[in-house]
Order: sequence, then structure tokens, then C-alpha cells
Amino acid sequence: MVQQDARLDRIFSALADPTRRQVLARLGTAPATISDLAEPFAISLTGMTKHVRVLEEAGLVVTEKVGRSRRCRLGTERLDDAMAWISFYQRLWERRLDGLDAYFTLRKGIEQ
Amino acid sequence: MVQQDARLDRIFSALADPTRRQVLARLGTAPATISDLAEPFAISLTGMTKHVRVLEEAGLVVTEKVGRSRRCRLGTERLDDAMAWISFYQRLWERRLDGLDAYFTLRKGIEQ
Repeated sequence: MVQQDARLDRIFSALADPTRRQVLARLGTAPATISDLAEPFAISLTGMTKHVRVLEEAGLVVTEKVGRSRRCRLGTERLDDAMAWISFYQRLWERRLDGLDAYFTLRKGIEQ
Repeated sequence: MVQQDARLDRIFSALADPTRRQVLARLGTAPATISDLAEPFAISLTGMTKHVRVLEEAGLVVTEKVGRSRRCRLGTERLDDAMAWISFYQRLWERRLDGLDAYFTLRKGIEQ
């Protein structure tokens, strides 16, 4: 449970940044080097390397050294658990509304 | 786009903590005060107030002062955009596998 928690923490944390989300979208089309990834952003190679490391620790990216550059591609993490957690929350949320509906129906009944 | 980005940042950031995820699960069953929420955790009221504020800023929780305590309940944020983003990523991820499949089929054809 604690391990699972730590994994979800790393995943949600990795997704909580627009540059990292765009890097994932970019790698979803084709692998790329750190320089390729840095190019569209006003960001240093060091800055991009840090973002990629966060994604790598969350399992969302894998990297390998190819000659003098580092090639990045999507990792093994499919985000199934993050999706499952959000679905769980949405069920709770809907149920909360069901509860409110029931409450207002009840009040309506009382007030009539 | 920037506003939307900032919203997703706040949401994923808020979800990147096991205490905050448990607070949401708890509030999905019924509203609760800060003290109710702090009780199952080894956490101070100040610590819990900080967690609740992060959830509130992400729209996941709303709070109101009732007498001397602060009552918390689920907010208006349904996580639809977070869900949409994860679905988008999963489609990219599947397509990446399609790409790999195509690549291996191609290689198999060449090697035979």
C-alpha cells in the first residue's frame, strides 16, 4: 500500500507540470534526444534533463545513451493506476450528488 | 491554454500526496471538520489545514466556517480534464506499441 502510494505520488507529481506533460505528448509521437525535447521550450539542456529525470523516476520515460546524446522514449507506465484512482474519485463524486439529490427530494417532500 | 495548464498543475499536484488522496476518499462518504480529517492521521490540525487548502485551491474541496470549526466537503472539480489528459496519454502509449509492432513485423519480413 505504501509502495503503491509512493508510485502514485511520483506519477501525479510528474504530471503536475506543463513542460513535462508536453514532453510526454512529444514522445508519444516518436523518441527524441534531450536537445530535441529542449528546443521548443525556452529551457536549458540541464533544465530539460531534470524534467526527464522526474518522468523517468515515475516510469513514464526511459532513456538510453546513444553516442554523445541521451535518447528518450515513453516508458512502461501506462497510467492505469492513476486512471483507476480518478475513476474511483469520480464514482464518489457522483454518489455525493446522488446524496444531495436525495436530500433535495426529501426537502421538497417536506415543504410541499 | 496557460490557465488550463495551471489548473491541471494544481489538480495533479493536489493528488500527489497519500494524505490528500485519503482526505478526498473520506469526504466522498460525508462532509467532515478539519479535526475529523486529522484524527486518523498522525498529523496536527495545522498540517491538515494546509493539505485541505491545497485541495481547496485545486477545486477539489470546499470549506465553510460552522461555529468554531471548518466544515469540508467535496468541491465542484470532477477531474474530467485530468481524466481526459490521462486518456489522451494512453492513446499515445497504445499507438507507440502499434508502432513497435509494425517495426518488428517489418524486421521479421526482412530477416526471413
